[in-house]
Amino acid sequence: MFNGFEELLEKYAEVTIKIGLNLQPNQRLLIGSSSTREGGAPIEAAQFVRAVTRQAYKAGARYVDTIWKDEQIDRIRFEYAPRDSFDEYPTWKPAVTAEYGKRGDAIMSVYASSPELLSDQDPELVSRAARAGVQYGQQVLGLIDKSAMNWLVVSPPIQGWADKVFSDLPAEERLAEMWKLVFKICRVDQPDPIEAWRNHIANLVKRKEYLTAKQYTALHYIGPNTDLEIGLPEGHIWHGAAMNTLAGLPFTANIPTEEVFTLPHSQRVNGVVTSTRPLFFSGGLMEDFSLTFEDGYVVKATAKRGEKILAGLLDVDEGARRLGEVALVPNSSPISQSGRLFYNTLYDENASCHVALGNAYRFTLENGAQMPEEEFVARGGNKSALHVDFMIGSGQLDIDGILANGDREPVFRQGEWAFDV
Amino acid sequence: MFNGFEELLEKYAEVTIKIGLNLQPNQRLLIGSSSTREGGAPIEAAQFVRAVTRQAYKAGARYVDTIWKDEQIDRIRFEYAPRDSFDEYPTWKPAVTAEYGKRGDAIMSVYASSPELLSDQDPELVSRAARAGVQYGQQVLGLIDKSAMNWLVVSPPIQGWADKVFSDLPAEERLAEMWKLVFKICRVDQPDPIEAWRNHIANLVKRKEYLTAKQYTALHYIGPNTDLEIGLPEGHIWHGAAMNTLAGLPFTANIPTEEVFTLPHSQRVNGVVTSTRPLFFSGGLMEDFSLTFEDGYVVKATAKRGEKILAGLLDVDEGARRLGEVALVPNSSPISQSGRLFYNTLYDENASCHVALGNAYRFTLENGAQMPEEEFVARGGNKSALHVDFMIGSGQLDIDGILANGDREPVFRQGEWAFDV
Repeated sequence: MFNGFEELLEKYAEVTIKIGLNLQPNQRLLIGSSSTREGGAPIEAAQFVRAVTRQAYKAGARYVDTIWKDEQIDRIRFEYAPRDSFDEYPTWKPAVTAEYGKRGDAIMSVYASSPELLSDQDPELVSRAARAGVQYGQQVLGLIDKSAMNWLVVSPPIQGWADKVFSDLPAEERLAEMWKLVFKICRVDQPDPIEAWRNHIANLVKRKEYLTAKQYTALHYIGPNTDLEIGLPEGHIWHGAAMNTLAGLPFTANIPTEEVFTLPHSQRVNGVVTSTRPLFFSGGLMEDFSLTFEDGYVVKATAKRGEKILAGLLDVDEGARRLGEVALVPNSSPISQSGRLFYNTLYDENASCHVALGNAYRFTLENGAQMPEEEFVARGGNKSALHVDFMIGSGQLDIDGILANGDREPVFRQGEWAFDV
Repeated sequence: MFNGFEELLEKYAEVTIKIGLNLQPNQRLLIGSSSTREGGAPIEAAQFVRAVTRQAYKAGARYVDTIWKDEQIDRIRFEYAPRDSFDEYPTWKPAVTAEYGKRGDAIMSVYASSPELLSDQDPELVSRAARAGVQYGQQVLGLIDKSAMNWLVVSPPIQGWADKVFSDLPAEERLAEMWKLVFKICRVDQPDPIEAWRNHIANLVKRKEYLTAKQYTALHYIGPNTDLEIGLPEGHIWHGAAMNTLAGLPFTANIPTEEVFTLPHSQRVNGVVTSTRPLFFSGGLMEDFSLTFEDGYVVKATAKRGEKILAGLLDVDEGARRLGEVALVPNSSPISQSGRLFYNTLYDENASCHVALGNAYRFTLENGAQMPEEEFVARGGNKSALHVDFMIGSGQLDIDGILANGDREPVFRQGEWAFDV
């Protein structure tokens, strides 16, 4: 790839094992876990998966398993399979993932795909196949939701993806350049990546503790084509970087992560919000879309690109039209600074402020993981088979926090944190 | 690879779908099925798997799925995993295979591995890992045994394997040369491969019908370091190339196949037999081994190489020390003529006469698939979690058929068929 690549790859893998999963001696690890967006680790990412396997065993893993997939075979299906067969799904992939998770084994999702893979295929079929994936992925989302085990989403570059992100470069340079950028964004190029991550996580922890203590009743977003008020339930908890499994093991579920996030009230969202970055969802791309909310429910959805895919996404189930997550990320983040669009939620969500349509995380509400589902829902938690982030942050975004007494405080100004910790 | 490679690859894939599986419109297909020897299709065989997927959809398949594995990760495990963890096994692989099979979907095993991958690893660990695979593979062997669905074993070349088979060639030529040989052996280089296969199968069918009609009570093998009598049960059926699923669908379970085979009597094998080709079993290689049978049971086993692996194999269970298959292949077969050792049962077994230790096929006995297990065993059928073929044929092998009245007839002379059909 380039000089020093193998060494950086091992460090990247080490970060996923030690910072991401915090894998424990004698734990098992499933790589290529399958939930809504993924059906296994792409075989093109084999070199990365091998490095992770090696680092996992070095950390004392008992067994490391992988569920693989091949993008080219996905494409062959769209080219040749019977048109009425797109509800077929390899249901064993989420089932096996859930089996590992329920046993308390660690699971790692290798989320890497080529944005243009299916862009010339029938969007109706693409969204039908995606719906099948979302449906069967629920059993895994349920475990992730409760952090039943340590889990991680990570996105190593593959060729077809680099071709999209670095389309301005000569073909033979793209993959190497993307790896360099990913190593930088993931702090792998720093002298001691593990130490750098510990400092970064400590900083995010201070931000989330400040916000949780404030207990704003709502956030008010003002930006270009955006004027949105998002209610926050009583007892909401801000999270970021440092999480805990139900059994109390600390871990970091995304590498990279730059966000703090909490629970929006599924019934108290009003106004209009416009996406600031493209959204790539199961083979389809949506750009410049606006959603109008009334009492938490999307009543209108328009898009300059991918409106059909957006409509399909909103129709997955009732909960797909309500918010399940609200997240704050300064516009000065390393990803935003790179000036690149990744067409990949893990990177793009860490570039900017965002919200998610669909399922809410139990752990973003006080005692949320322990309470009955009806109570969680009554308190404002959203239920859905879907959880899809989209970006609403930019250098023009201001956010106010509204206190219980109605007072307003600046939270973001021009895309940056507006308070000190 | 070489000029015309892609076209030949598609023809090879077409033979596996049309001649091998005889895949039916609307059938599902699982590629990389997992039984005793395999834990999925190697990711290095991706180009082949893609061609098979394409040909399957062209033949009307409803859904084509793949279970993958990566050899390099197998090796990483042996290098780094805890020494006491080698009973761990991805039990979902045979479970998913059985799920597909029970539903009547077709299953294809992609059996390709690098013979030297684990040759520097602890043979005790290698055989422990193999035993775990054999144990969990039983549920799949049970389905294959009854031909509950159309199934196929096929072995496309991969680099580490070509490195062993063509070690006398420069490294960069080996894989291409191996592909050329495989295309030849599998009749893919003929003008009409499908027609060539139909003729070849018709010829094998005449041989097996002749032998079934004869109902020899035993075969007597005489060759260098071999003097062995193998009893054949009353009602044994010779098979070859053309098989039928329980539902009556014709298929050909191995590509290539040159053999006719039947059921040996598990209690009536006596004498000494010496292997004429190396046997590669789950990472270990055995060469020049001799087995001494008394009343069907191996009472002595020696080997010039891999004696420990041989001992481990025989200790898998009680049935591992008895025969489950006897097969006839003329020494003039294309594989034998190639002069190459493949270190792979699918090719090497089709070079020469062989027998198998372990599980017997129900369908090699009249009504065998329908009768209770105790009856099958009482009639001479062997039960085991294992089924491992080894080669005993050569240009020096003579075989007599012994009729019920004690008369002898020549079946093989100097490694060739000794009767006309």
